Amino acid sequence: MAQDPLVIFTPSGKRGRFPVGTPVLTAARQLGVDLDSVCGGRGICSKCQITPAYGDFPKHGVSVAEDALSDWNDVEARYDRVRGLKSGRRLGCQASVLRDVVIDVPAESQVHRQVVRKAATARVIEMDPATRLYYIEVEEPDMHEPTGDLERVKRALKAQWDIPEISTEFSTLAGLQPVLRKGGWKITVALHKSDHAAVPRLISAWPGLHEGGLFGLAIDLGSTTIAAHLTNLETGEVKASSGIMNPQIRFGEDLMSRVSYAMMNPGGDVEMTRVVREAIDTLASELAKEAGIAPSLILETVFVCNPVMHHLLLGIDPVELGQAPFALATSNALSLTARDLDLTTLPASAQIYVLPCIAGHVGADAAAVALSEEPGKSNDLVLIVDVGTNAEILLGDKTRVLACSSPTGPAFEGAQISSGQRAAPGAIDAIRIDPETKEPRFRVIGCDKWSDEDGFWEETAATGITGICGSGIIEAVAELRTAGLLDPSGLIGGPAQTGTERCFPEGRTHSYLIHDATEDGGPRITVTQGDIRAIQLAKSALYAGARLLMDTRGVDTVDRVVLAGAFGAHISPKHAMVLGMIPDVPLDKVTSAGNAAGTGARIALCNLAARREIERVVKEITKVETAIEPRFQEHFVNANAIPHATDPFPELKKIVTLPNVSFNTSGDDRGGRRRRRS
Amino acid sequence: MAQDPLVIFTPSGKRGRFPVGTPVLTAARQLGVDLDSVCGGRGICSKCQITPAYGDFPKHGVSVAEDALSDWNDVEARYDRVRGLKSGRRLGCQASVLRDVVIDVPAESQVHRQVVRKAATARVIEMDPATRLYYIEVEEPDMHEPTGDLERVKRALKAQWDIPEISTEFSTLAGLQPVLRKGGWKITVALHKSDHAAVPRLISAWPGLHEGGLFGLAIDLGSTTIAAHLTNLETGEVKASSGIMNPQIRFGEDLMSRVSYAMMNPGGDVEMTRVVREAIDTLASELAKEAGIAPSLILETVFVCNPVMHHLLLGIDPVELGQAPFALATSNALSLTARDLDLTTLPASAQIYVLPCIAGHVGADAAAVALSEEPGKSNDLVLIVDVGTNAEILLGDKTRVLACSSPTGPAFEGAQISSGQRAAPGAIDAIRIDPETKEPRFRVIGCDKWSDEDGFWEETAATGITGICGSGIIEAVAELRTAGLLDPSGLIGGPAQTGTERCFPEGRTHSYLIHDATEDGGPRITVTQGDIRAIQLAKSALYAGARLLMDTRGVDTVDRVVLAGAFGAHISPKHAMVLGMIPDVPLDKVTSAGNAAGTGARIALCNLAARREIERVVKEITKVETAIEPRFQEHFVNANAIPHATDPFPELKKIVTLPNVSFNTSGDDRGGRRRRRS
Repeated sequence: MAQDPLVIFTPSGKRGRFPVGTPVLTAARQLGVDLDSVCGGRGICSKCQITPAYGDFPKHGVSVAEDALSDWNDVEARYDRVRGLKSGRRLGCQASVLRDVVIDVPAESQVHRQVVRKAATARVIEMDPATRLYYIEVEEPDMHEPTGDLERVKRALKAQWDIPEISTEFSTLAGLQPVLRKGGWKITVALHKSDHAAVPRLISAWPGLHEGGLFGLAIDLGSTTIAAHLTNLETGEVKASSGIMNPQIRFGEDLMSRVSYAMMNPGGDVEMTRVVREAIDTLASELAKEAGIAPSLILETVFVCNPVMHHLLLGIDPVELGQAPFALATSNALSLTARDLDLTTLPASAQIYVLPCIAGHVGADAAAVALSEEPGKSNDLVLIVDVGTNAEILLGDKTRVLACSSPTGPAFEGAQISSGQRAAPGAIDAIRIDPETKEPRFRVIGCDKWSDEDGFWEETAATGITGICGSGIIEAVAELRTAGLLDPSGLIGGPAQTGTERCFPEGRTHSYLIHDATEDGGPRITVTQGDIRAIQLAKSALYAGARLLMDTRGVDTVDRVVLAGAFGAHISPKHAMVLGMIPDVPLDKVTSAGNAAGTGARIALCNLAARREIERVVKEITKVETAIEPRFQEHFVNANAIPHATDPFPELKKIVTLPNVSFNTSGDDRGGRRRRRS
Repeated sequence: MAQDPLVIFTPSGKRGRFPVGTPVLTAARQLGVDLDSVCGGRGICSKCQITPAYGDFPKHGVSVAEDALSDWNDVEARYDRVRGLKSGRRLGCQASVLRDVVIDVPAESQVHRQVVRKAATARVIEMDPATRLYYIEVEEPDMHEPTGDLERVKRALKAQWDIPEISTEFSTLAGLQPVLRKGGWKITVALHKSDHAAVPRLISAWPGLHEGGLFGLAIDLGSTTIAAHLTNLETGEVKASSGIMNPQIRFGEDLMSRVSYAMMNPGGDVEMTRVVREAIDTLASELAKEAGIAPSLILETVFVCNPVMHHLLLGIDPVELGQAPFALATSNALSLTARDLDLTTLPASAQIYVLPCIAGHVGADAAAVALSEEPGKSNDLVLIVDVGTNAEILLGDKTRVLACSSPTGPAFEGAQISSGQRAAPGAIDAIRIDPETKEPRFRVIGCDKWSDEDGFWEETAATGITGICGSGIIEAVAELRTAGLLDPSGLIGGPAQTGTERCFPEGRTHSYLIHDATEDGGPRITVTQGDIRAIQLAKSALYAGARLLMDTRGVDTVDRVVLAGAFGAHISPKHAMVLGMIPDVPLDKVTSAGNAAGTGARIALCNLAARREIERVVKEITKVETAIEPRFQEHFVNANAIPHATDPFPELKKIVTLPNVSFNTSGDDRGGRRRRRS
């Protein structure tokens, strides 16, 4: 008796023998090959497309004849006529095996396909979504054997998909009857599985085969901005991205001022919860509109946020986070519904996953960075800094990961800076100061040219030069230091000390004039002594936090630095190091990870296993509390100097020579004036 | 070496040997003796009180010495001083075993104590509540080992109560932090367990030891009235009972008219859902006030209701229940929260259990009757009739149970009856008509005397005689028939035919005057021909439903009849049988079960195992659909006669002789006038 035909799947390499006439989808399922199907082999969803390969395959030891698969049948012909089937493709549920065959499963037919992140790094996200679609054909009601419609849906899932038990989101129940009748008892259901529930949960249903897609939101809920990616949960494709201001800003710029607001104003926490949820609704609505989809198709949302935002999102008074011992109401990951959070743009049954918090000051946003950047898998010692109003700092390698947060304040985002503004067209985001002439040149957002290049003024006429954004102010301070206009203690020199009228007196201190746009009706853009102090406070906090983790780890240097956060992506590593924001490393060892927290949210949105992974990882992270660590204060004071009072920064010295100036005219500096150069 | 002391618990009889010094509570737990404790043995909750018995116990083979238990310790002394300990009682967690001892566990120290139902039958409810209290001492937060407060609560439950995992009702989370701090990290939590969830669910928390009790509502949500019992979930005691009108009545008197309202008015179902939920909130609030408890202590609610009320409660359009095949959206039992139903009087985390429905016309109320009356455990064949606007009918014994519902309409409740009214003071609820004089005497609600007894008129002067209620109209029709004023076809005779002026012409038919109160400014209370027709329709539907079940079971008689429902409790069995409402059985085989549906709700509220039981039982019940069964129509027509056109009613004949009259004056009756007696 002849052997059954051999079926070999690529790229998995899985192989097995099956009786003549076995559908390719059946063979794939029995071998555990990742071949998608929503309709369960009924030839209507087209998710199980495969490409048979013909000819000799010495590698696999088979020759595939032209008649290895059954001929096209009516179902395939109709599908091709109506929708078009790519050349060489077959429907895996319709084509059956006649002889030895090699079957390629194209990426788009794999459930667990890989999606390349948009960010610079080559990391990919493997699709393993929590919510999946199942097409079912449900028995019609029978008066003589009365059962509920839901019970017959369950019976169909058991018989047709081997799903023995489900639970039902209550808000989905009311819509089930009309859907069943509209679909003629053929419907598609969305089932959500999570580790937090014993069985999959029915969260939506559509008449017939649902082809409108399934979407999720990955939301990075920051103190200042709320950023979200609308993602297709079947393909992993980002359909739309957007961000809006966090409306809580009117209750306080930074986290602690919001906690104070809640403490001082009864019901203040409730009000802040209300406005942030409204903003999320608005954002979700805008994204759905931009992507051209119904908001009812957004069935999952993942949140990452710092602990205060975490509590305010959940409707928990953040007061405990404002005082030692900074106790979180809950630190574990949470599985909720849109209804729990009173989100009204999303369907009430939409599933919400909130990443775990690491500690009272180190939130789910830091967990998301850990998920995205995986310090625990690094061979060398990596310092990851997520720069924002609060900085989340991770230090680690394969042996151990440590985390802390540091209250940098909003200066790095251009707030509390005299000419500061958000990163928007017209904002100076890069600046160079000639060490000889002390004259500046700069670039603004919206124009690629430097201000001393031809055409710059014409191209920026529309926006004007409106202010200076976060990365601009960092460069400005670093350039002032490099050009000898700012001494290590952070004092701006006067015109006589510096030899330039751009350093002009303002009250009892000096400011540096970058650009005077008053003739064009614009502002005078300066760096004031107050701006320098604000940046010094911010960078000292950041550096001290990093240094504290290094102390705890017992090291004086790190192997590499990753700058995360939307802002981190725009920081010039050299200027950051001149400023002493980050520890001294070779410049090529400073990389940007883009919005790593947002990427972590996207990973958790697309991949269920990643949720399990980060829930495990956060438990293993060593938490360091900056607020109560005496050495933090010491590190903070030493980090106030630019770049640093005591740490040597040898790598920085290889590329930059910083003028040894001092502009302190009082008698208490340690030899300042004598060492003045200019 | 001497043996360890022997400890014998009564009433369980469980026994075992324990080392000297073992606390009684510990011994009880190790033996699986049902001894309550909320504080886990800390000597503060007093739930584990026991009574040691001293002297000789030949039955148990032990002598108990006076020093069999340790002396009173400080904890017991303080407890006795502050709260008072009943004579002979000890705290099981404080008293430890020194020698052989017999320990009695009084009923109030048992978790699974038995509670006698208020109803006439001797049946008891065993306490096995889904929600229980646990006192825990929680670790304080530690900045160096940061975990959330909730995570430390979970750790305490695991360490102190051996509860390895819980889930948390989201709405409970926000309140946890203040409770922990107010209680100094000592709190009591309420955990709810159900078959629908894998692990117990945290649903409430109080500072310190919670001694304010734990309450539940058993709600019988009827088409006309909503009745509820507020029950102490620790003792089973009913603290308050009340009922209010279902405000949906303004959308339609009976179920089908409400379904029609939903069909004809877009959004009508939403409106009906809103008003019924508001009414439940009002009722819950009134009951809490009456019992003197905070509504926040009502942590569970059980609902029983017919399928239309079931759907309207849940916010599901009932339209499918108004047309064949009468498909329920879901038939299984449901576990929800107060928040799911937008109930605002109860805490959002209050757990709601809705009993399963049996079929599209046979609801959770019928399931509750089955739970209360247990036809499936009956040795003889019992017919259970729950009389209301819709009648639920169950027929069965140990071998098989059948169920149907029948649309009797509201006539049995006094609605659509010319002089009809609700059962309230002033309503006639019993009537006798003298067969010779044809004169009536009657009783009214609020007065024990008959109208021909001395003092009747004085005692009823305050209320007046205002109308006739459901049981009154049934008696009136039966008495008219017995007195020869009504013929088997349901025609009231005229004055000439009957020889009494109380039978007076009204239009083309006759009415019977019961009482003329017009001189006192009251109504003329009559029974009209229309009233007779309404009662005939109702009783025919009821009888036909019962008969259909008997057909399906293959029997012509039943062994006994149980009348359930608040109204069923007031029906006179003899009159019901004269009317032909129920099949012919010996009169002493007709009993009343009171509000069996409400009792079923109370059982499900107090006993978790009962929920599992009824969920199993409803699946085994044979459902009979009256609306599509041709024989139902035939039975209905035959049942129109009083008592019945074809069924012989031999038991009835033993006690009542019905005059063989006919008042049909047209030529089409079969010999009517010739057989006239009067």
